[in-house]
Amino acid sequence: MDKQNLDNLRHSCAHLLAHAVKQLYPGALNAIGPAIENGFYQDFDMGKWNISEEDFPKIEAKMKEILPTWKGFSFKEVTLPEAKKLFKDNKYKIEMATEFAKQGKKLQTNDPGDFLDLCKMGHVENPSKELRHFKLLSVAGAYWRGDEKNKMLTRIYGTVFPTKDELENHLKMIEEAKKRDHRKLGQDLDLFAFSDLVGKGLPLLMPKGATIKRILERFIVDEEIKRGYQHVSTPPIAKVDLYRTSGHYPYYKETMYPPMIVDEEELILRPMTCPHHFALFKIRPHSYHEMPIRYAEISPQFRYEKSGELTGLMRVRTFLLSDAHIITPKNQAKEEIVGVLDLIDFINKALGLKAGIDYRYRLSLGVRGDSKKYYKDDEMWNFAENILRDVLKNQKVPYFEAENEAAFYGPKIDVQMKNVNGKEDTAFTVQYDFVMPKRFNLRFINKEGQEEEPVVIHRASLGAFERTIAFLIEHYAGAFPLWLAPVQVAILPISDKFQDYALKIKEELKKELIRVELNNDSKTLGAKIRETTLQKIPYMIIIGEKEAGTGKCSVRTREGKDLGQITISDFVSNLKSQIENFS
Amino acid sequence: MDKQNLDNLRHSCAHLLAHAVKQLYPGALNAIGPAIENGFYQDFDMGKWNISEEDFPKIEAKMKEILPTWKGFSFKEVTLPEAKKLFKDNKYKIEMATEFAKQGKKLQTNDPGDFLDLCKMGHVENPSKELRHFKLLSVAGAYWRGDEKNKMLTRIYGTVFPTKDELENHLKMIEEAKKRDHRKLGQDLDLFAFSDLVGKGLPLLMPKGATIKRILERFIVDEEIKRGYQHVSTPPIAKVDLYRTSGHYPYYKETMYPPMIVDEEELILRPMTCPHHFALFKIRPHSYHEMPIRYAEISPQFRYEKSGELTGLMRVRTFLLSDAHIITPKNQAKEEIVGVLDLIDFINKALGLKAGIDYRYRLSLGVRGDSKKYYKDDEMWNFAENILRDVLKNQKVPYFEAENEAAFYGPKIDVQMKNVNGKEDTAFTVQYDFVMPKRFNLRFINKEGQEEEPVVIHRASLGAFERTIAFLIEHYAGAFPLWLAPVQVAILPISDKFQDYALKIKEELKKELIRVELNNDSKTLGAKIRETTLQKIPYMIIIGEKEAGTGKCSVRTREGKDLGQITISDFVSNLKSQIENFS
Repeated sequence: MDKQNLDNLRHSCAHLLAHAVKQLYPGALNAIGPAIENGFYQDFDMGKWNISEEDFPKIEAKMKEILPTWKGFSFKEVTLPEAKKLFKDNKYKIEMATEFAKQGKKLQTNDPGDFLDLCKMGHVENPSKELRHFKLLSVAGAYWRGDEKNKMLTRIYGTVFPTKDELENHLKMIEEAKKRDHRKLGQDLDLFAFSDLVGKGLPLLMPKGATIKRILERFIVDEEIKRGYQHVSTPPIAKVDLYRTSGHYPYYKETMYPPMIVDEEELILRPMTCPHHFALFKIRPHSYHEMPIRYAEISPQFRYEKSGELTGLMRVRTFLLSDAHIITPKNQAKEEIVGVLDLIDFINKALGLKAGIDYRYRLSLGVRGDSKKYYKDDEMWNFAENILRDVLKNQKVPYFEAENEAAFYGPKIDVQMKNVNGKEDTAFTVQYDFVMPKRFNLRFINKEGQEEEPVVIHRASLGAFERTIAFLIEHYAGAFPLWLAPVQVAILPISDKFQDYALKIKEELKKELIRVELNNDSKTLGAKIRETTLQKIPYMIIIGEKEAGTGKCSVRTREGKDLGQITISDFVSNLKSQIENFS
Repeated sequence: MDKQNLDNLRHSCAHLLAHAVKQLYPGALNAIGPAIENGFYQDFDMGKWNISEEDFPKIEAKMKEILPTWKGFSFKEVTLPEAKKLFKDNKYKIEMATEFAKQGKKLQTNDPGDFLDLCKMGHVENPSKELRHFKLLSVAGAYWRGDEKNKMLTRIYGTVFPTKDELENHLKMIEEAKKRDHRKLGQDLDLFAFSDLVGKGLPLLMPKGATIKRILERFIVDEEIKRGYQHVSTPPIAKVDLYRTSGHYPYYKETMYPPMIVDEEELILRPMTCPHHFALFKIRPHSYHEMPIRYAEISPQFRYEKSGELTGLMRVRTFLLSDAHIITPKNQAKEEIVGVLDLIDFINKALGLKAGIDYRYRLSLGVRGDSKKYYKDDEMWNFAENILRDVLKNQKVPYFEAENEAAFYGPKIDVQMKNVNGKEDTAFTVQYDFVMPKRFNLRFINKEGQEEEPVVIHRASLGAFERTIAFLIEHYAGAFPLWLAPVQVAILPISDKFQDYALKIKEELKKELIRVELNNDSKTLGAKIRETTLQKIPYMIIIGEKEAGTGKCSVRTREGKDLGQITISDFVSNLKSQIENFS
């Protein structure tokens, strides 16, 4: 089913919900009820009533009861006075009708049988047949028209699909996504937390979460150094003037923190790293010998997000980015971008993400006519867009093109990541920038001894660490691959008698840099195995009579597979080769 | 010579300087001229004259000319009206005299022969004999009485010693310190820089400086994890309320950045990490099983320093601390402190610093009566001070005690580091804290199933990274030991002919994680060796006819020692064993 038909289906189902609720709760007023991604919602002013998810079975039953009578929507154009008369009891409908009329839009009522409504969206032809596979999902508060000065309404979310199978698959996926929710797993697995004392959107990584961050960080830094990046370290605050020079300040001001006056300087938390790297580049002159220069940094950044938009580690107010800025002669830009895509591909593979399945590329283009949004230089835009397109084509990677999605200083390649809900988001980008070199007057001395203006490639090799960790938690449902697992091996002695041997094995594994935990609780082995499995620790070593003093151990995986008895040294070399291969 | 006599000597020499300047520059007025550490200064209102270091020989000659006539200071008490009359031409003397009189202090003139002055300091008995070994050092501007609203005076720094040898040694040390100045070496060796665009006191670590930081960071994190610390990651900003809870806010407010209002929250850059770790501890309950908990973090912190006090990497406005907070049952505190001192000793040794020579410990005690400055709980103070004293005694480390130097929440052990000028500074501290657990209501469940209040040990295992790097630059005069050197090996091919072999060796060394640079400039070998030596790169590999294709290379040290021909693999294993031993 195409998107328009699916939207019609879902919006029609919102009407059905409105009708049922109005019958069950006399005096409740229906406000808007649009189709949204994966379903619909319907807002209500519930008057004297309260509603919760416990009421859903009753409401769904009423919807099913009404449905057979809905043979088809009939439509009728009305004037504003007519609409005002028809919906005199519903101030929300009147407010919308008045506004539509003011904008010169036509007003149209619809009626599927016995429920007159007023709206501007599309509907299905045969509701009684088509609306059968619906489900109510959740209830939340929502301000009328999204404005917190208005009344808080009750919003019921639901979904509907053309077939029973599709509905069931979707509900299963929601269940699965709930189990994988990184906020829940983050708490269960002791990975991260928030504290009212510290503030909203400011995550505290517990030891295990910080371990994942450290592994990722070292992995990326080492790989980038291998590939000729130079890691630098620049301050997380700077003068506001720095961002005025870059042109970011007026543009990004809304998402920046307020400035701090310190002595004669106006300082601000950095929302991005590029101007810092340009300042570094300008410290001394550069010759073509050194170019391209690839400054990289695991860089803390700060963006103000509205408190309503903060979501676990996905949306935070401070984050760490594996940022880099390649300052390159124009004629080497293409091979640099090839190198960046190769690096991204390598890192994603190590994380277990597959091109074409978990992510794909988007070529985000400018609009030639729009010199307000995009720096005016048609020739440069053509040149840069062609370079990016060429690279994507030659690399034979899955990509698509999107107009009007570029940065103001040039086109970019976005890495579009698919999450467990099937939703696609831009995880990070590779940007071609021909504007900042002008703004910062960046220059190098070329072979001819002349000053030449380079171009800049902005790139991240991973999304924000916080977001990537959230994504990986959900992707793996907390069962991280061995190389990323905060605890790789749990040692479970059957009883206190085997403590010494258990401790000896622990020290041996630690010496080999294996992250190991010894479970010394006086619980039964069964309980210990259950706990370790819930903690999603990849391997457990069980130590009992059979193993003690033999130099061997019994190994079991978190999936419940018994690997039998094995010598410690064989076990260690197995682990090491898995870790080396990012398993 | 004891400090008082040395101060008398130096202050007397300031008189001599004043006399010489007044003779050479008629109309110049002498203001104050105190003894300071390692010398003295004398301030002048130079009137119509300008003075620079080029004038020092002339002034020193005049001082030498006057000196034989100074047989001894004669003193005379005067009244304020008398002083005003005697010094009617010198408004600075009159201002000081008026103030002294107001404070009820006696006024005393002194005269070594023919130069009447008024001051309150001590003097030598026989100036003509004692003042012979002096030297003028530098000239700077200084506001009268340190207040920028007052007139800018001319300040001449100098020094004087009892013997010629002592003076010469001191001048040599100054020369050496100048060569070792981390600000100069930081630029020469491309380690760090500051940028007007970014802001004062906000250092940019260039690739080589950032490499040193990264090596130190990984070294410390790995060692701490080995010793049972749990590294965490907490946000560099937090609600001001967090620091109100800790009691830091009113106390440290002057050195904190201004708050930022974001939505309904008042956020601020963190000046320390402890409250963040307490917030983390409080996320969930803790049992005695898990205790002591050692939260560690390589933590960015922010303190406002006056722009006049910023000094290279020594004094900056944002810094990185290897911070930790050990939350421990009171009865385990002692062994935890032993562990901390052992760690500090280990790290200092790796950095090449020797206890008793480069650093010693200071036991900083509270004052029982002063409940304004120190939390009132005599019993706890006695207990805690005894623990720290016991540990220092048992460890047999060099230490001394200092009254009235504790934190407000408990006594501490300061690591007192000696810099290249011989000056001793507190590099970092180990603090015993029995107050924060109360303020944050920290609790754990003890063996008896009861809630128990722990104590906290605050500690750093290294000073601020920036300061430590500055210190190490000066300590090693930029010639870092192999394990810390940003570039460990430079490959110098004798001509272009040997490029391929040079590149092959480079790749081999890179694979072994050796930090290597290939010098491909078309310069002579002599020039390349000179450059590499100036860059203080520990080893150079010279590739010529003899070496190409043999699997061998000729190795030379930065000290100019020729190690002869050696196979690459032998060279690599030599390097590796040196690195492992922190050489």
